[in-house]
Amino acid sequence: MTQNRQFILKRRPNGAPVAEDFALETSTIPALDEGQFLIRNHYASLDPAQRGWMSDADSYMPPIPLGAPVRATTIGVVEKSRAEGFAKGQWVMGLNAIEDYSIGTLGGFTQPIDPHAVPKVTNYLSLFGAVGMTAYFGFLDVCEPKPGDVVLITGAAGAVGSLVGQIAKILGCTAIGIAGGAEKCARLTERYGFDHAIDYRGKDVAALDAAIRAVAPDGVDVIFENVGGDILDAGLMNLKHGARIGLCGLISEYNAPQPVGARNIWQLIVHRASIRGLLVADYIARFAEGGAQMGEWAAAGKLIVDEHVDEGLDNALPAFLRLFEGSNQGKMILKIA
Amino acid sequence: MTQNRQFILKRRPNGAPVAEDFALETSTIPALDEGQFLIRNHYASLDPAQRGWMSDADSYMPPIPLGAPVRATTIGVVEKSRAEGFAKGQWVMGLNAIEDYSIGTLGGFTQPIDPHAVPKVTNYLSLFGAVGMTAYFGFLDVCEPKPGDVVLITGAAGAVGSLVGQIAKILGCTAIGIAGGAEKCARLTERYGFDHAIDYRGKDVAALDAAIRAVAPDGVDVIFENVGGDILDAGLMNLKHGARIGLCGLISEYNAPQPVGARNIWQLIVHRASIRGLLVADYIARFAEGGAQMGEWAAAGKLIVDEHVDEGLDNALPAFLRLFEGSNQGKMILKIA
Repeated sequence: MTQNRQFILKRRPNGAPVAEDFALETSTIPALDEGQFLIRNHYASLDPAQRGWMSDADSYMPPIPLGAPVRATTIGVVEKSRAEGFAKGQWVMGLNAIEDYSIGTLGGFTQPIDPHAVPKVTNYLSLFGAVGMTAYFGFLDVCEPKPGDVVLITGAAGAVGSLVGQIAKILGCTAIGIAGGAEKCARLTERYGFDHAIDYRGKDVAALDAAIRAVAPDGVDVIFENVGGDILDAGLMNLKHGARIGLCGLISEYNAPQPVGARNIWQLIVHRASIRGLLVADYIARFAEGGAQMGEWAAAGKLIVDEHVDEGLDNALPAFLRLFEGSNQGKMILKIA
Repeated sequence: MTQNRQFILKRRPNGAPVAEDFALETSTIPALDEGQFLIRNHYASLDPAQRGWMSDADSYMPPIPLGAPVRATTIGVVEKSRAEGFAKGQWVMGLNAIEDYSIGTLGGFTQPIDPHAVPKVTNYLSLFGAVGMTAYFGFLDVCEPKPGDVVLITGAAGAVGSLVGQIAKILGCTAIGIAGGAEKCARLTERYGFDHAIDYRGKDVAALDAAIRAVAPDGVDVIFENVGGDILDAGLMNLKHGARIGLCGLISEYNAPQPVGARNIWQLIVHRASIRGLLVADYIARFAEGGAQMGEWAAAGKLIVDEHVDEGLDNALPAFLRLFEGSNQGKMILKIA
């Protein structure tokens, strides 16, 4: 139990991460300080945001140091504890790393969780974790949807996007999803209840613009943006007056050498529309409220959450790369133990 | 009086407008319909927005038709009238065109004005017109400045920008202006009371970023954006948490073949900041309120408004091009008669 396998960042990726950027290394777990506890990690969340943390850009979190394990939200079980309220056997969730064992302290994202309160313990990494809370607060608080609104969701087959589309439907909005490939588009309409699905593959900005216009001839009230690049530019050409764009992510440019951003922001003037950045960390104090509502919708069969679990620390990189290839179906999770 | 010289759009400009895109033509004034009045135009407002109206892009206004005179806000005197309340001799302001005579009807921007109520009748094209109201409502309503805020204004020596900086100072903000050349920068601090001026000439994004950081090491709360391109990208790298960017214009790209937009919008996520487009047309119903406040500030010596008047319909193009060369000092106005 004193040996710890860690998925280490050896080199900052240039473009798409490759094997040489990482190493699986074994280290010895240091002794616990007062207030700390040792977590046996069972599952790690794999998210596009981690690609940003691997770069050296100053962002909302410091870069992952070279030589350190890759930062990730994990869920696991307390093995040893020198912290009040975190006894051996307690399940916990927190912002830790992709490794067998993490040392936790109370604060930030770290919190005890109850595996019996949810259908599956991994739901804490999807419905009740950063993903679910991003969908819930990012959509409701930042995009301010109203019943009848036309809502465009990009990256719609992804973990956050599929939840946003379903929440839009619960609220009485029209949900249009953009995703890559016929299979994912079928999932949007057949499994998640989107009204329309648009396959972005093989489409340039003009073709994407036309495809959105075909299903939303009067424009869209809300865009929940996960992708950026051509897809955002096409969305910007289809805004209604006063449209709100919630900027959740820009996955199309995380592996790009230079940011593309939004070329068509002149449309914000034309339609007096807005783009607002969102980050789930702002809503930690309201997670209980969001989780209760999401859990209620899920229990009532109104909200489907899919999880895609790959196994083993030695699969960390291929599992992570699925997010950029689009080969995952649901929230991407790595099973560690 | 039946002959009308008109500054006609002959061809849609490709890049910067050139002489061949226009012609000064003479036509006969048609007879008035009931509800119309004939305006002898004295002054026309020259604004960057007109460049957008010359393109064929669908925007917040239809493109100027080829063969039609170039749309402009003008002020003039009613010569003949078949409209109630608009007697011969009445001064009026309205969205007309660059021409000797325009036919007006009540509605939209069109309104009677009183030349004795203001220091100069041209103030209706600056302080009390679209320019002044853009500065007033665009800044106060869209950017929501608070005392103590650090406000960055781009295109700061321009008609709108110079007013926004002065309003920021009146409200107790720190005003930082970006402009082109040492002379304009000196005007910002010495004439308009900005705290800091940054000369964008010869600076790339990194140098602009560093120049902003040097005077606003903790970032900016508000950006009032008139320029776009490298200057907007540098501003995006200097946002405080929750910063508001009011997007008023993108003059750097009006003559460009392709829009550049905002490459660094990932910073909106990092700082949960927003970009919101603004257009003065939304505030027509509140112009009296805005004009009263601007007039009060100007009368108290707190607000300086500069006007740059070129003379003659045959000078319309060189006068208009000053806006893009930056050779005007103050609100650009063409004296027609």
